[in-house]
Amino acid sequence: MIIVMRPRSTQAEVDGVASRITKAGLTPHISQGVERTIIGVIGDERLIHKEHFSLLPGVEDVLRILKPYKLASREFRAAPSVIDVAGVPVGGANIVVIAGPCSVESEDQLLDTARAVRASGARLLRGGAYKPRTSPYAFQGLGEEGLQLLAKAKKETGLGIVTEVMESSDVDLVAQYADLLQVGARNMQNTKLLRSLSKIKKPVLLKRNFSATLTEFLMSAEYLLAGGNDQVILCERGIRTFVEYTRNTLDLNIVPAIKLLSHLPIIVDPSHGTGRQDLVTPMSRAAIAAGADGLMVEVHPNPAEAFSDGDQSLTPERFQAMMGELAGIANVMGRPLSRT
Amino acid sequence: MIIVMRPRSTQAEVDGVASRITKAGLTPHISQGVERTIIGVIGDERLIHKEHFSLLPGVEDVLRILKPYKLASREFRAAPSVIDVAGVPVGGANIVVIAGPCSVESEDQLLDTARAVRASGARLLRGGAYKPRTSPYAFQGLGEEGLQLLAKAKKETGLGIVTEVMESSDVDLVAQYADLLQVGARNMQNTKLLRSLSKIKKPVLLKRNFSATLTEFLMSAEYLLAGGNDQVILCERGIRTFVEYTRNTLDLNIVPAIKLLSHLPIIVDPSHGTGRQDLVTPMSRAAIAAGADGLMVEVHPNPAEAFSDGDQSLTPERFQAMMGELAGIANVMGRPLSRT
Amino acid sequence: MIIVMRPRSTQAEVDGVASRITKAGLTPHISQGVERTIIGVIGDERLIHKEHFSLLPGVEDVLRILKPYKLASREFRAAPSVIDVAGVPVGGANIVVIAGPCSVESEDQLLDTARAVRASGARLLRGGAYKPRTSPYAFQGLGEEGLQLLAKAKKETGLGIVTEVMESSDVDLVAQYADLLQVGARNMQNTKLLRSLSKIKKPVLLKRNFSATLTEFLMSAEYLLAGGNDQVILCERGIRTFVEYTRNTLDLNIVPAIKLLSHLPIIVDPSHGTGRQDLVTPMSRAAIAAGADGLMVEVHPNPAEAFSDGDQSLTPERFQAMMGELAGIANVMGRPLSRT
Amino acid sequence: MIIVMRPRSTQAEVDGVASRITKAGLTPHISQGVERTIIGVIGDERLIHKEHFSLLPGVEDVLRILKPYKLASREFRAAPSVIDVAGVPVGGANIVVIAGPCSVESEDQLLDTARAVRASGARLLRGGAYKPRTSPYAFQGLGEEGLQLLAKAKKETGLGIVTEVMESSDVDLVAQYADLLQVGARNMQNTKLLRSLSKIKKPVLLKRNFSATLTEFLMSAEYLLAGGNDQVILCERGIRTFVEYTRNTLDLNIVPAIKLLSHLPIIVDPSHGTGRQDLVTPMSRAAIAAGADGLMVEVHPNPAEAFSDGDQSLTPERFQAMMGELAGIANVMGRPLSRT
Repeated sequence: MIIVMRPRSTQAEVDGVASRITKAGLTPHISQGVERTIIGVIGDERLIHKEHFSLLPGVEDVLRILKPYKLASREFRAAPSVIDVAGVPVGGANIVVIAGPCSVESEDQLLDTARAVRASGARLLRGGAYKPRTSPYAFQGLGEEGLQLLAKAKKETGLGIVTEVMESSDVDLVAQYADLLQVGARNMQNTKLLRSLSKIKKPVLLKRNFSATLTEFLMSAEYLLAGGNDQVILCERGIRTFVEYTRNTLDLNIVPAIKLLSHLPIIVDPSHGTGRQDLVTPMSRAAIAAGADGLMVEVHPNPAEAFSDGDQSLTPERFQAMMGELAGIANVMGRPLSRT
Repeated sequence: MIIVMRPRSTQAEVDGVASRITKAGLTPHISQGVERTIIGVIGDERLIHKEHFSLLPGVEDVLRILKPYKLASREFRAAPSVIDVAGVPVGGANIVVIAGPCSVESEDQLLDTARAVRASGARLLRGGAYKPRTSPYAFQGLGEEGLQLLAKAKKETGLGIVTEVMESSDVDLVAQYADLLQVGARNMQNTKLLRSLSKIKKPVLLKRNFSATLTEFLMSAEYLLAGGNDQVILCERGIRTFVEYTRNTLDLNIVPAIKLLSHLPIIVDPSHGTGRQDLVTPMSRAAIAAGADGLMVEVHPNPAEAFSDGDQSLTPERFQAMMGELAGIANVMGRPLSRT
Repeated sequence: MIIVMRPRSTQAEVDGVASRITKAGLTPHISQGVERTIIGVIGDERLIHKEHFSLLPGVEDVLRILKPYKLASREFRAAPSVIDVAGVPVGGANIVVIAGPCSVESEDQLLDTARAVRASGARLLRGGAYKPRTSPYAFQGLGEEGLQLLAKAKKETGLGIVTEVMESSDVDLVAQYADLLQVGARNMQNTKLLRSLSKIKKPVLLKRNFSATLTEFLMSAEYLLAGGNDQVILCERGIRTFVEYTRNTLDLNIVPAIKLLSHLPIIVDPSHGTGRQDLVTPMSRAAIAAGADGLMVEVHPNPAEAFSDGDQSLTPERFQAMMGELAGIANVMGRPLSRT
Repeated sequence: MIIVMRPRSTQAEVDGVASRITKAGLTPHISQGVERTIIGVIGDERLIHKEHFSLLPGVEDVLRILKPYKLASREFRAAPSVIDVAGVPVGGANIVVIAGPCSVESEDQLLDTARAVRASGARLLRGGAYKPRTSPYAFQGLGEEGLQLLAKAKKETGLGIVTEVMESSDVDLVAQYADLLQVGARNMQNTKLLRSLSKIKKPVLLKRNFSATLTEFLMSAEYLLAGGNDQVILCERGIRTFVEYTRNTLDLNIVPAIKLLSHLPIIVDPSHGTGRQDLVTPMSRAAIAAGADGLMVEVHPNPAEAFSDGDQSLTPERFQAMMGELAGIANVMGRPLSRT
């Protein structure tokens, strides 16, 4: 941590800061500049509060040097983490595609979709049983009945299940059915949910909040890691900007940025990221080319009849065509699509 | 709802859309323009999905005409709602100031603050017992012990209690202590929590999420209203933008915009909204001048030692000075500060 | 400037950075931390490039300590600057209101507006002769004819003239007519225009760009000051965010933030800032309460027939009513409205 | 255009709107809904102002149906435009890479870079002679001397020249040297510059402003097209968001969105888009995979000594390595890199 004193700060003010650093068990290191005095803090700055210094007399600014996340960082673990989801490694040698409907609506809808996406090369099945909707009047998901349908789809197709859990009290129930428990964007900073998920033995898919910085995203992962669950997969799904032609702004820049800073795998959800089925294929290609470890894509047998998010869902036919295009990009990247 | 057909759409496509509208129990109304055909939907468009039309052949765009919220709208209730919080009316003839520490830290810290803010004219006491923190290594609140300290402060000072509830399973417990249950910005779209709070008989303070539009904000209020709780107070607390000199960008524009569209009272939190104690006073004055029904302000006896958010907390002395300035603005607005 | 070395950087890397600092005529100051080595730079960091260090081997991050602006800062001049515009002091003891139409459209339109706003207490007349429009098919202003109409309005009403200049080649012409030359938001970083304006003897109104940080805003002012023109008035007029209920997001937080960092006066344009005439009055009140030195407001005798920006223009009647409300707020702030 | 009346609007109000439409030479089309009356406007809505209706009594909202751009749209020209730049077709069968330094600094710097990027497969040379810098104290470019050095580099390497023009008065001079005249992000809405460029016979590279919507971007292109210059290439270079790990947020979503709406070619500048040389290669791969027609990349022989933007410049060696990776992606996309 670096403490920048105001111009013309007094010796007493500098001493005040230094003694506060010493009191915290750390060592001050004073540099007299031309315009300002600067005080470095030697020791683990994660132990102290920025405010404990920013409000002292004579202090102009306090700059953190260390990243606030530790277990999620590349410094902690240099090699990429590979997470096993129902036998499918995510973050390893192959690109993994997760596909399925936004919401589980019925047995037919789910099983038709599951068979179709499996045939096209998807390795895991997504489907929401609990849906966090903007409107109280909108379909909120089938709940446990939806989970049972997912189990049926798994039994028939062999695809591992990815589904959202919305509250800590549901974790045990959802964990009975899911192979990968999804934390939705709206819950990325639901710390009670994160703590509950940190105690289970199943992998977690952590979606980035609409307005999360990279640091906040990794800090939410840190909740899971610090609590004891190191099976974490990150997911970029679009941020909120002024842009009008997409529902969100899919931010692919975070993919290579995460690869530099963290060992955790990161996949991309171009369906929520753009909100437009006509942008899903090009942005899926781009995600793989940017270095993503996989994709999560919404597919529905009849998007115009979907209970939710029809605008961004691919038909099985378009999904199959897309998988053909992705195979080429994945091969050039040296990470062929994961196949059964 | 208005359905805009693509240029050169065929008669069959127009007929397809019209028959889909009829099937949904509504009436189509076709206008042949120069470049495009436009189809109006007569009936309650809240019953149908935009996607059910946007994906039909020949459709270019679908525009909603009605606002998605109903109970929260001025059309539903023309007169402003006044919410009673422990005997203090919010949204009525007087401006109400809520003050207190970010987190409840200890009995002394809380009681000293409570006495001080009461003496300066605050009518309700805020204080967090459950804290949603970005870092798993940061102080997460005293939990139920914090609630008990709040009860003690209420007993001594008579100030009603405002405190956050983070999960639906905590609602009953928190409701035993709180006079106004706060939904934090991170939980604005936690639909399970909103549903639980819609079933209680106590008022709810709904904070706007960092990236919530006005419509999303009112839709979260709609969850509470539709579930049966019409004691809802809105709170603006800053949005996320590119701006670098404030922690968030306090968006006062939403205050008069809400007044035009909704009957619900709205207060402003300049402490989280700016993240800087040196901006709290001017932005508090501005909030009242913009038409806010009240303020929620962080006060701490020793901000440099606060467990959380010290940078944005006022000392009791600065709070007292600010209350003097606010009294003048409130009087000019014809809504004097609420006094015991 | 502070240079943060990567963990496990070598002595040779540290020496490399230190010798680069020495070569630039500055002094390195090395602190050996627990996890990282940190190197302070003693001397005027404005003389060196961040990149000259960030790309050296072993460097993780480079942090600037000094603000990049100097002449615009409070440190350079502690007392607030008061700018005289045609005899009206801006930034002094009184709040100044500038009003008038978005575009100069005709002699009648301009003179009617000028008389009306003068009667209500405006001290300066705004009106655009050169209009930067999003669409090439929209009205682009009357050009020099518009300037002549402004001169006529000044002659009749005595109001000083505020009008936009869009290009350095127009500066001399516009300066013949204008008492305050406006740099529009789209031109805030038009460095050629800024350099031309730095050479004239008239005050400049610098509007903040939609996406400008505070630092960038002051750096554009620094172009004017460094070139020799210290008559600069800043103007906040809304930033671009995700928000949907206002055309821009008027960011009043910048008003007190500028007051802390700079000696330059700052006024607020609530018309462009919100894009809605029904929000202009409350946000004007709020701007004064936040500490702004004045306002610039669009007024049109018949907004529904305006050539541009009718949605955000007040009628003369609404403007008069607003001025009554503003007088009260200004008095409470101890800075009564400037009067003839 | 669709005019939405308020609930309970009167017949007189509806008639007032209808007669205003008729007066403008268009035809009203009235639909009586359950909650609201809606009035469609038959005819070319580009001829009328939204404000002329939004401010009439009884009107709640006015929705535009037609896009405001015409010549830039796919409806105007269905086939993609291919722009010839010094013999290199942009927007055609091959991906084109433009490379070179941010600023022209010296003959050696420029020629070394030009030779290196040519050897690696770049087809056009970029280099700034006029530099719009945030700080008045920063290097502002060599001006005409820089243009002469670019001419020398062209003579030696045969590479066509891409360079920025900042003001309409410089257009003729820059056009003598440049094969592709660049409008920088800060000037995207400099309408005087756009009008001047619409009159020349050379292609223009239009960079997207930090905060431009897609519609605004195409409206700036429309200025060029409407003025008579149909040789326009678009360039995405990053938007301003809250994100902290990149200088801007490169928004690749606009690439496929533009392809759906416009016939103009679009290239991507990952150097400014990310501001980080370590993200340039992955985001360049992603841009091509998203469907971009080309790239513009900053290369400098010694980035740590660059006069500007060193942080985002590749060394010639890294550029060469990147071109190898891009070749593979371009081939899979069916659009091999353009070669001499």
